Amino acid sequence: MATFMDVHHGMNGITADQLAAAHQADLAVESAEGVHFKQAWADPDSGTVYCLSEAPSKEAVQRVHERAGHAADEIHAVPLSV
Amino acid sequence: MATFMDVHHGMNGITADQLAAAHQADLAVESAEGVHFKQAWADPDSGTVYCLSEAPSKEAVQRVHERAGHAADEIHAVPLSV
Repeated sequence: MATFMDVHHGMNGITADQLAAAHQADLAVESAEGVHFKQAWADPDSGTVYCLSEAPSKEAVQRVHERAGHAADEIHAVPLSV
Repeated sequence: MATFMDVHHGMNGITADQLAAAHQADLAVESAEGVHFKQAWADPDSGTVYCLSEAPSKEAVQRVHERAGHAADEIHAVPLSV
């Protein structure tokens, strides 16, 4: 398992309810891929959403996001943290 | 106070020690700006570092990073989180 930060662009105007619903959609399908989405942060002005996950691979992160209806624009392994 | 996610590019090859030292440099000067850097994640392969902070403004976040010797390339307020 590794830690990943993924980024979605173009989510301008996203609301708290929409962010919560998107996160729930990830949680609903993540177990099939061995992924867990831990946290997410959104900037409605720039339309940027950051998601932090634990997953076996970048591809597994993307498969969960795709199944939940919102593929990520960037996915980075973040092996270092403080 | 608000929550911010900032991003540094070009940090290819960053090590755990370098990330820890950079974070400590932020912590050492943050109080003058009323900022607190909470967490940071790094991808040495793509050279991307994400920093999560609580701060009074985007400008205060950047002033701390500048004083610590590593200005951010992007700073986004992230008023929504899950």
